[in-house]
Amino acid sequence: MSLKLYGYWRSSASYRVRIALNLKQLDYDYVPVHLVKDGGEQHLTSYQQLNPAELVPTFVDEDEDVILNQSLAIIEYLHERYDSGEELLPEHRLDRARVRALSYDLACDVQPLVNLRVLQQISADFNADDEHKAAWARNWNQRGLSAVEKRLQTTAGKYCFGFDVSLADICLVPQVYNAMRFKVDISAYPLIEKIYHNCLELDAFERARPENQPDAQ
Amino acid sequence: MSLKLYGYWRSSASYRVRIALNLKQLDYDYVPVHLVKDGGEQHLTSYQQLNPAELVPTFVDEDEDVILNQSLAIIEYLHERYDSGEELLPEHRLDRARVRALSYDLACDVQPLVNLRVLQQISADFNADDEHKAAWARNWNQRGLSAVEKRLQTTAGKYCFGFDVSLADICLVPQVYNAMRFKVDISAYPLIEKIYHNCLELDAFERARPENQPDAQ
Repeated sequence: MSLKLYGYWRSSASYRVRIALNLKQLDYDYVPVHLVKDGGEQHLTSYQQLNPAELVPTFVDEDEDVILNQSLAIIEYLHERYDSGEELLPEHRLDRARVRALSYDLACDVQPLVNLRVLQQISADFNADDEHKAAWARNWNQRGLSAVEKRLQTTAGKYCFGFDVSLADICLVPQVYNAMRFKVDISAYPLIEKIYHNCLELDAFERARPENQPDAQ
Repeated sequence: MSLKLYGYWRSSASYRVRIALNLKQLDYDYVPVHLVKDGGEQHLTSYQQLNPAELVPTFVDEDEDVILNQSLAIIEYLHERYDSGEELLPEHRLDRARVRALSYDLACDVQPLVNLRVLQQISADFNADDEHKAAWARNWNQRGLSAVEKRLQTTAGKYCFGFDVSLADICLVPQVYNAMRFKVDISAYPLIEKIYHNCLELDAFERARPENQPDAQ
């Protein structure tokens, strides 16, 4: 088995896939793609050939001749392909739908608005300075986390969905990390705060943390 | 069977679910939620109880006591729950992963950046006028469609993934509709343009079009 993950330590989407690979107990080579240095290594021709969207992560399974982009597509694939480790989605259809909905609340409604390229675009288009950019990122994180906190009132146990880790936790932890970078007060979301800490007690989440990656600065 | 879809005619995410329901040959009641009138009906307390994120769409299956948000979670649920009509995802794991990746290229990397609430926020935060907002929406549509066009070179047949309609087409058609509203020249993306027209020849897509909804203006 020869698995590779092209990612960046601070990218939420890369962080998600690292957690999922760890939960599935899969060994992989981590290939850092620096999103800032020299205008961004994701724009190099060699990387574009792997991922024409010029974004991280990209996942490669050399044995299966698979090159996949999009963190959630990679994670669903890992769930379907490997029996090892934890299940990443619940067994029952409706539970699975609820976990996916929680995941997309974060992966579609928050993360896309607060990542590096969007903040760069706001600077370029609207002359936003660092404080404007942080305020923008805080606002979307707060709106998103506030909605998720309400949903968790009916779904949460130790984790986002009951007492098993799932895709929803895989999306939540990197989003909380992002929110904290922009000084969002996480204690305003007590369920989220509790689940975040419960997750980080697990080795799979701990090893996936940005600061534990070889490209961390 | 009693299915309800709360949506808005012009919302891309609502449009996706309408297509999926039609492809699965499911009858449903369409409940319009006006995103602009009176500050937005999605913010009414009655709607918040259905969807605390105050976004459309929300799907209700009264027989199963199901209330679901997030268009992609709804569509995966419809795929898993109903045998009727078309399959929305391919049978084989790797094909499914590729279709999901294409779908998320649009649903995570483009649509979240160009929807109504984001354009409203840009006005509020940066004083952007209509032309600034349109330029912002054009830019993200162009970057996203350009990446998808490259991927389609290895996946497309009559539709995004070979010769069967899939989740990727369900995401593509509403995105093209959005891009055209902002005057993106779709002929710059010949595969996307071809697939868009092939899809609209299908009754399921035709009936789902924004202008064919009761709340169209």
